[in-house]
Amino acid sequence: MNKQQLFQHIQKKQSFLCVGLDSDLKKIPDHLLENDDPLYAFNKAIIDATAPYCVAYKPNVAFYEALGDKGWMTFEKTVAYIRQRYPDQFIIADAKRGDIGNTGEMYARFYFNDMKVDAVTVSPYMGEDSVKPFLLYPQHHVVLLALTSNKGAQDFQLTEDCNGERLFEKVLRISQTWASDEQMMYVVGATQGHLFEDVRKIVPHHFLLVPGIGAQGGSLEEVCKYGMNSLCGLLVNSSRAILYADSSEDFADAAHDEAKKLQLQMADMLTKYLNK
Amino acid sequence: MNKQQLFQHIQKKQSFLCVGLDSDLKKIPDHLLENDDPLYAFNKAIIDATAPYCVAYKPNVAFYEALGDKGWMTFEKTVAYIRQRYPDQFIIADAKRGDIGNTGEMYARFYFNDMKVDAVTVSPYMGEDSVKPFLLYPQHHVVLLALTSNKGAQDFQLTEDCNGERLFEKVLRISQTWASDEQMMYVVGATQGHLFEDVRKIVPHHFLLVPGIGAQGGSLEEVCKYGMNSLCGLLVNSSRAILYADSSEDFADAAHDEAKKLQLQMADMLTKYLNK
Repeated sequence: MNKQQLFQHIQKKQSFLCVGLDSDLKKIPDHLLENDDPLYAFNKAIIDATAPYCVAYKPNVAFYEALGDKGWMTFEKTVAYIRQRYPDQFIIADAKRGDIGNTGEMYARFYFNDMKVDAVTVSPYMGEDSVKPFLLYPQHHVVLLALTSNKGAQDFQLTEDCNGERLFEKVLRISQTWASDEQMMYVVGATQGHLFEDVRKIVPHHFLLVPGIGAQGGSLEEVCKYGMNSLCGLLVNSSRAILYADSSEDFADAAHDEAKKLQLQMADMLTKYLNK
Repeated sequence: MNKQQLFQHIQKKQSFLCVGLDSDLKKIPDHLLENDDPLYAFNKAIIDATAPYCVAYKPNVAFYEALGDKGWMTFEKTVAYIRQRYPDQFIIADAKRGDIGNTGEMYARFYFNDMKVDAVTVSPYMGEDSVKPFLLYPQHHVVLLALTSNKGAQDFQLTEDCNGERLFEKVLRISQTWASDEQMMYVVGATQGHLFEDVRKIVPHHFLLVPGIGAQGGSLEEVCKYGMNSLCGLLVNSSRAILYADSSEDFADAAHDEAKKLQLQMADMLTKYLNK
């Protein structure tokens, strides 16, 4: 899926919601634990309930990896389910990988060729040759960590060099020389508020994956005010607020309602800030 | 295993060799492909051949993850095999993970509780709260990426702030406040040569995991001259040079010889630089 197609889906659905599949055996409703693959049953129900209101899904790889070989089967089945039932959804493996040469190639081949996700989150710390293997797949996307939503983002990402350029700004600037805005996207946390202005000075045309609204305290309005561009350019993620809106047998209805609520807010934001 | 025990093994074996298990179906000898689990058969043979000459194994997670659920079973069996047969070996999962809060906790629990490795490599980009979940296991170790061996290390890791402190130096300095040198180790690439002097000014007592000798061109002598401390403080990794020393049925003998050759060089280095 290219940027233009993603934007068309955003316009059609009036939503730029990404549902994060941080699916945790300890948090899903008890009655699902009777299934052969409880997480898959949970994911299917969440996906069916939310698909009309979102344009992307982001399975968080850690939650599947933590279950060993069974977890990977759940991951693969979940991606295949989305692909088959909802082919217009953009799928991001939130893996935060990043390694050099042949190691990076292994990761890229696995996620893009085998798992068939559209995009993978990648850490920039090891530099160009740790990101390049993922860019060898022109139909796929790298979502590079730039300015994350957590408190630890302050430890290194905001460090200024002698010219006053902060590390996240350098990551944005330098990584643009590795691929175009068709292939590269960035993680920018909703909690960073007005720093979206600084991000957009460097990457006006890129899509940004934005975690951190809801539980983490980021403001959707602020993200849109400072971050939206002429193709929307935002995929705003919500995980726990949707997945665990209700812990009873009605969990899917509650997830539906939560996703719809966010979609309606996003429709307002598109009216207010798109092309402004 | 604590630092002192690791040092005792180094003294006993006169080796600080870490064998990197970057085991690749495309590179292992053809005759092994007839096995039910060819990579496990390969790993067992490599481990049996090299165990007398090394003190650590470092399975590179990408190579197992790339095979999906089957790969994870191979990973788990490999770690269990080392644990059972060679309990004095230090096992590092080279995963380069790093994620916040509950996600980081999932990774930490999986690698330390379930997979039972001694240490995991972690990326520092997201800061303290992405590393802390791994530090909740006091008997286990974080090997934090500081100054890697690849060309891309130049892109961000060498960026100087206004006080002339480079990013890798800041990572070393700040991360020391998160845990002691009993729990924290660092990745420093052998290709960085004399920069080991700068690393040791900040972390004189920590163990360093050193990739990049052999195929990548780093010098063992230089690493030892600038990097060795009173507990050795080095785990020097070799992967391809050992694993793929020979592609015939004699691959294990060739791996044995290659590991022994490195061990002899390391014994010389210990004589020359330990307590100097």
